[in-house]
Amino acid sequence: MNIRCAIVGPTSYTALYLIEILLHHPSAKVTYLATQREALPNIADEFPQFRARCEMAGQPIDPAAIAAAADVAFLCLPHVASMQYAPKLLDAGLRVIDLSADYRLRDAAQYARVYGHAHEDVANLAAAVYGLPEFFAEQIKDADLVANPGCYPTAAALGIAPLLQRSLVKPTGIIINATSGVTGAGRSPKQPFHFPEANEAFSPYAPGIHRHQTEIEQTLRTIKGSPVNVLFVPHLLPVDRGILESIYLDPADDDVTEAELYEAFHDAYAEAPFVRVRKELPNIKWVRDSNYCDIAVRLVHAGGEPGADNDGIARKVIVFTAEDNMIKGASGQAVQNMNLMFGLDQTAGLK
Amino acid sequence: MNIRCAIVGPTSYTALYLIEILLHHPSAKVTYLATQREALPNIADEFPQFRARCEMAGQPIDPAAIAAAADVAFLCLPHVASMQYAPKLLDAGLRVIDLSADYRLRDAAQYARVYGHAHEDVANLAAAVYGLPEFFAEQIKDADLVANPGCYPTAAALGIAPLLQRSLVKPTGIIINATSGVTGAGRSPKQPFHFPEANEAFSPYAPGIHRHQTEIEQTLRTIKGSPVNVLFVPHLLPVDRGILESIYLDPADDDVTEAELYEAFHDAYAEAPFVRVRKELPNIKWVRDSNYCDIAVRLVHAGGEPGADNDGIARKVIVFTAEDNMIKGASGQAVQNMNLMFGLDQTAGLK
Amino acid sequence: MNIRCAIVGPTSYTALYLIEILLHHPSAKVTYLATQREALPNIADEFPQFRARCEMAGQPIDPAAIAAAADVAFLCLPHVASMQYAPKLLDAGLRVIDLSADYRLRDAAQYARVYGHAHEDVANLAAAVYGLPEFFAEQIKDADLVANPGCYPTAAALGIAPLLQRSLVKPTGIIINATSGVTGAGRSPKQPFHFPEANEAFSPYAPGIHRHQTEIEQTLRTIKGSPVNVLFVPHLLPVDRGILESIYLDPADDDVTEAELYEAFHDAYAEAPFVRVRKELPNIKWVRDSNYCDIAVRLVHAGGEPGADNDGIARKVIVFTAEDNMIKGASGQAVQNMNLMFGLDQTAGLK
Amino acid sequence: MNIRCAIVGPTSYTALYLIEILLHHPSAKVTYLATQREALPNIADEFPQFRARCEMAGQPIDPAAIAAAADVAFLCLPHVASMQYAPKLLDAGLRVIDLSADYRLRDAAQYARVYGHAHEDVANLAAAVYGLPEFFAEQIKDADLVANPGCYPTAAALGIAPLLQRSLVKPTGIIINATSGVTGAGRSPKQPFHFPEANEAFSPYAPGIHRHQTEIEQTLRTIKGSPVNVLFVPHLLPVDRGILESIYLDPADDDVTEAELYEAFHDAYAEAPFVRVRKELPNIKWVRDSNYCDIAVRLVHAGGEPGADNDGIARKVIVFTAEDNMIKGASGQAVQNMNLMFGLDQTAGLK
Repeated sequence: MNIRCAIVGPTSYTALYLIEILLHHPSAKVTYLATQREALPNIADEFPQFRARCEMAGQPIDPAAIAAAADVAFLCLPHVASMQYAPKLLDAGLRVIDLSADYRLRDAAQYARVYGHAHEDVANLAAAVYGLPEFFAEQIKDADLVANPGCYPTAAALGIAPLLQRSLVKPTGIIINATSGVTGAGRSPKQPFHFPEANEAFSPYAPGIHRHQTEIEQTLRTIKGSPVNVLFVPHLLPVDRGILESIYLDPADDDVTEAELYEAFHDAYAEAPFVRVRKELPNIKWVRDSNYCDIAVRLVHAGGEPGADNDGIARKVIVFTAEDNMIKGASGQAVQNMNLMFGLDQTAGLK
Repeated sequence: MNIRCAIVGPTSYTALYLIEILLHHPSAKVTYLATQREALPNIADEFPQFRARCEMAGQPIDPAAIAAAADVAFLCLPHVASMQYAPKLLDAGLRVIDLSADYRLRDAAQYARVYGHAHEDVANLAAAVYGLPEFFAEQIKDADLVANPGCYPTAAALGIAPLLQRSLVKPTGIIINATSGVTGAGRSPKQPFHFPEANEAFSPYAPGIHRHQTEIEQTLRTIKGSPVNVLFVPHLLPVDRGILESIYLDPADDDVTEAELYEAFHDAYAEAPFVRVRKELPNIKWVRDSNYCDIAVRLVHAGGEPGADNDGIARKVIVFTAEDNMIKGASGQAVQNMNLMFGLDQTAGLK
Repeated sequence: MNIRCAIVGPTSYTALYLIEILLHHPSAKVTYLATQREALPNIADEFPQFRARCEMAGQPIDPAAIAAAADVAFLCLPHVASMQYAPKLLDAGLRVIDLSADYRLRDAAQYARVYGHAHEDVANLAAAVYGLPEFFAEQIKDADLVANPGCYPTAAALGIAPLLQRSLVKPTGIIINATSGVTGAGRSPKQPFHFPEANEAFSPYAPGIHRHQTEIEQTLRTIKGSPVNVLFVPHLLPVDRGILESIYLDPADDDVTEAELYEAFHDAYAEAPFVRVRKELPNIKWVRDSNYCDIAVRLVHAGGEPGADNDGIARKVIVFTAEDNMIKGASGQAVQNMNLMFGLDQTAGLK
Repeated sequence: MNIRCAIVGPTSYTALYLIEILLHHPSAKVTYLATQREALPNIADEFPQFRARCEMAGQPIDPAAIAAAADVAFLCLPHVASMQYAPKLLDAGLRVIDLSADYRLRDAAQYARVYGHAHEDVANLAAAVYGLPEFFAEQIKDADLVANPGCYPTAAALGIAPLLQRSLVKPTGIIINATSGVTGAGRSPKQPFHFPEANEAFSPYAPGIHRHQTEIEQTLRTIKGSPVNVLFVPHLLPVDRGILESIYLDPADDDVTEAELYEAFHDAYAEAPFVRVRKELPNIKWVRDSNYCDIAVRLVHAGGEPGADNDGIARKVIVFTAEDNMIKGASGQAVQNMNLMFGLDQTAGLK
């Protein structure tokens, strides 16, 4: 089989890494680059790393033409833009993987509040499947429209869900201290991401008010089957790529052990090819350019002298998760979803 | 007045920045570089930035000679090494500012447990003053031996103590998610700090078992007057300099307001020249090469939809603190302590 | 004396570093921030590092008001903009230091060709003095209008001129392989300087066609008294600050020795407080945040086995120069010029 | 076919990238990790990115055992160490690709002078083939011992040789201004490569006295058939990976055109899958993690006003080459050589 792939919005970073992966995919190829730009004679003018490897011209976002050329369309567009095109592409017979936020929140009213824009494609929203393969693989296989998860929510859900499923931690009071490399902010030049501003810098942003907080809660609530609350606090890291999340949770009771926490992760991901659960603490460097999410967990006293008997001091569970925000956090996961949708091994073309 | 300064251990990063500050200090000068090395013909061979600015030879660590040449000795040595020299320098009549950990923990038995080495100078330990000027300025003025605080503990104590003093937050369950630039790891080359390992990388280390956790608890307990528990989780940041701490606390009760939190900080630091309390979120870039610690605070629900009414979801206080780990976190604070000890304005030579 | 300084264009990087220096200058202070912006309530909103240190509002670029408040105006504007204001500020009685390129090239016709814009202030152009203190200190002292040199041309002229003056190298065939940190590209966000594009990247730009090539040739021709040709090839370095130039020249004849080359530099800069001539190879790290230009020189065979007798292979002179592009390459040099213009020691406020 | 690969010295950076490539090679696999270490229970302890992907134990450097398990041995050892093992591995029947410098210089006496150590395997030195596939593919195919070129020499030879072959440039007076990321310095922690020393830094080293100068001259002399002289000046770049060389040459005569220069490159590399000759100036970012060498060339006047008629000013050829020092400069080229040696398409497993 050779899945024919269209990429809508080919000059974004998610498109860059998507094309990069698809160039080496054994059963897929890029056949159409659909752009809003007036002229894009060669994608390699935009991304010179593609010289001699992928020198295609951009073409109009014409659903019929795309459907004639491709089996699946990846939407690498900003939110709001995605929902302008998704219905037309679906109507034209394409399967669609949307890398924007437009189909992630299931509740249109909530989408409107969180994103400040009424949802314009409620019908498809109802049918969209949240593309986190570790938990929703069966639905993804049959989906026509997959909402590819956000970068932060992927690392958060993978690090928290197994502990909630086993009721090893409380579903409230969860704190996600998150950090992301600058590609996460997109490719448009803006003051905070100008090199001399972002380099040798580090700062939080949007503490407790970031849109991904809602997406994370929705995912965990779906998996757990009851409400979950997380406080999400992102920071901008002076690197190109990588997300690390340090997640603080309360153990469900005094009897929880670190071994049980690890067992929950090992069991949850026994069949998951891209989650590595290990004792060693994750580092974004070790998942760079890969589709892995690395996870470690610790059960410690929330204070007291290191190594001493700190009985009486409450304990905390700390989960550390690391991923490449551009791969498992975006384009790699999108390919993993495509693989599932088209009956391939979910690891095809990924590493 | 011209304070004559000796620096013991002049080839460390703390010495580098200490010399840098003292070169521009209006009332102090470096008069003696005391080294364990066999030969150090010129400190500018070690730090070429000192060419034409500070070209001094290293001399033996001879207490009598140092006392003849200097009024104060800064110990820029590793722990355990410091306590070999501090008593002799004090006996020789010098006032001593120790940048190592040797005189920070007041309890010798605890020092032995935490640092894995029996304390060998218990007499001076009892008299040492913890050099955090924002809280202990009066004791510092009269001290002969000042234990300069750790880099992480400085940013932690400044960000937490005012809220504890006003009983606005609970003294337990405090989580300090901390990050530091690589100078914090010292100047000796080691594998994790080799450029290709540390660059474009980010990872936690020693979660809940770092020695600074004990120092932070001691400082807060001293200020609060009752036990305080913090969970301290450091991370290595791929920058030269800077510490950012994201600190999560539980409000003491439901009535606490963000305005009260700010009021506590503003009042606590009304006379503190190097603490800036602001609404804007701190960035390590804005304190680089300065003695400032920047602080912001937020009171948010620990979950829920951003901007919505999330009544019923517990609230969290988040304090963000930023400092230059080499300045306010080490050498700048040491000079601030020296200024106090010698009756100068505490801002002399600092910015 | 307290020189009152106005800064026109206060939101640029050159303004940032200029204010930073002037805040610690013993005999100068910033009294007026003149901006084209409609509103600039507080410069610390733009540069949060100035909180508690310099919280001034921007005011209109009103020559009379500026002249009432200040003795000297620093123009931190783009080229073309500078020459709109310089004549009015001069007419109002101010002395002016222009950090743009508008008054650097002495020939108005050449300015028009190189910058693509007719010069609109030919009268003042004729009277402007090129502000390279190591060579033109006497003229600078009496100047009303100083053209502050470009960042690259400063490091180039300092590294080449002494060898030309002694006729130790040929005035043609000079190659300047130059590199600059990203602040050199200004503060406006643009695609090539977006963090994920510039980080972990390195590339040449404008080889042999950069405007600074003309400025360098003019300076060297002025000093030498006869034509000089240089090929200037800049590269963008993934750091905040710093310029390193590796300059290749042909020795004038076979008798030239490395000792003579060093002697030329030592003699030329015997009285220059900010040039350090050393055997050790320069590093941008060692001049960061300082007004120094570091210089080293080597006389080597242009090929052959290292260490062998390579007689018969032509020799090359290699000069390496390093400076902080924001300090000696811009704002530090501007203050050095101000010091000269107002009769201060040229090192005042600089390090 | 499945080529069985042994890696001798598996904890180096060249081994890291070699394993990374071989993990995705369609016709090769790693079967033996041979180490001098007493214990290496799992290569993934050393390189955690290999968890779940390559968890092999290190084994002794036992030629017979290696020969039983592998068809080819890659030597990822320092120079001098390589020649201890190469003869034994060859004798055991293995084909050998040496990534060290031990078999690159054909003249044993020169090796001794340049590397300060007598060559101990002169017999095999005579038979070794220099593994630059773009010029020596035929010899490589039949070689038992391939000397994998140095990182700098690869980018230099590819950028210069075609112009020499066509006699478009003079064979003397060639200047190679080179820069390399820090992985080029190896994996052992040393002071200059400690993160806080190398980060935000840039400096030259070993100008005109680097060992690669000799290797470059040898390669060019071999290809040209007559002596060639180059002056090689490397610099340390604060990035993980990437080499950029800015090469200055004299055109052979006044009639040379830029079109002819490009034609020489296009013709030389018409069949070379990993050399991209383009008008756009290379950037190390665009070759990162790929086996490409990007080349651009310019013919400019060595001075004069940009864009003006600068007749009378001599012209210079500038060649810019970029590669990933770890891939085309080391491990990727080693695999390219392996592919040739075993009759595969030379692009197998590479991108």
